[in-house]
Amino acid sequence: MDTEAREAAGAGDEWADVAPDAARRLVRAAVEAFAERGYHATTTRDIAGRAGMSPAALYIHYRTKEELLYRISGIGHEKALAIMGEAAAADGSAAERLAAAVRTFVRWHAEHHTTARVIQYELQALGPEHYAEITALRRRTDRLLRQIIQDGADSGEFRADDVPGTTLAALSLCVDVARWFTADGRRTPDEVGVLYAGLVLRMVGAGAE
Amino acid sequence: MDTEAREAAGAGDEWADVAPDAARRLVRAAVEAFAERGYHATTTRDIAGRAGMSPAALYIHYRTKEELLYRISGIGHEKALAIMGEAAAADGSAAERLAAAVRTFVRWHAEHHTTARVIQYELQALGPEHYAEITALRRRTDRLLRQIIQDGADSGEFRADDVPGTTLAALSLCVDVARWFTADGRRTPDEVGVLYAGLVLRMVGAGAE
Repeated sequence: MDTEAREAAGAGDEWADVAPDAARRLVRAAVEAFAERGYHATTTRDIAGRAGMSPAALYIHYRTKEELLYRISGIGHEKALAIMGEAAAADGSAAERLAAAVRTFVRWHAEHHTTARVIQYELQALGPEHYAEITALRRRTDRLLRQIIQDGADSGEFRADDVPGTTLAALSLCVDVARWFTADGRRTPDEVGVLYAGLVLRMVGAGAE
Repeated sequence: MDTEAREAAGAGDEWADVAPDAARRLVRAAVEAFAERGYHATTTRDIAGRAGMSPAALYIHYRTKEELLYRISGIGHEKALAIMGEAAAADGSAAERLAAAVRTFVRWHAEHHTTARVIQYELQALGPEHYAEITALRRRTDRLLRQIIQDGADSGEFRADDVPGTTLAALSLCVDVARWFTADGRRTPDEVGVLYAGLVLRMVGAGAE
């Protein structure tokens, strides 16, 4: 699916907040290039070319290739944190909040699998300060999910023997959707989300089955 | 941990079968280079240099960079298939076989996380014939795990509503260990294996808890 088809399908434009238009085109081009060839094999010239711009035009918006990766990673991680925050803050039982968190988190990783792959696999390419900033966002996301699972364990709704370990596994399961998901596969992003919400509820020992 | 320390810790030399010694050194160097910089950013010159050899000496053993990746991917996937085959063919209940499969599969992905990452993330860099061969190995591994889960569902030992979906999730959970695992983390490879075996048994609805 091209970008327009995806937007029509409801996935939304993940880069809608990047302005001006030229900066947004560069972000899209960088994600594609990093996904295809890897961060280190991609030059700013490649990215500018894909965006139909000159290297000089790229430098108006981003001083370095790393700055582009940082922008992409920041937007992706902020979105992941927002999804988790919304689920954590919602009304309802721990099971309801956990199911909503997994479902929306998985859906995002399936719909934006190219971006999610770049973000996950190129984390080490960030400069030290940017890396520290991004890992702080990741820790906040982790903590939100852990708190939902801890809430369920404390109230007796869940029987999770190892809350940090179960949280780690649940997040890993969701994130890895970006690796294997393809738009032409058998399941839609939402179908994977529903399946995974059910499996994670089982992992935490929710309810009597 | 360096290679010697890892071998002393029982992880074994994953390249022991690659001969002669120069070919083995090149495989090790290629895994390191691909993991650090990505396949496309790595040259055969880089790999030869890491192995303390000349580019000409590399070509005696591998005609192309792709051939090195194919060799690495083949060995890794054969090992994954062997692990799964051993668990599937063992005596015992479906739950015992599933627990053994997950535990050893996870342990391998943790101990050999650098190799496993290269294998997973650079799959698209294989040539068409090699890609087809490797995906055939992957499908065989998938089928073995699916059969264990199906056996448990058929016998009533498991309550897995969606056997293909649950298999997909269980494999994904195991494979993603390679992404997040670090040797200096809180859990050993075997501890992660034990944790994950328990979580996957819950995912398939094994036993009354």
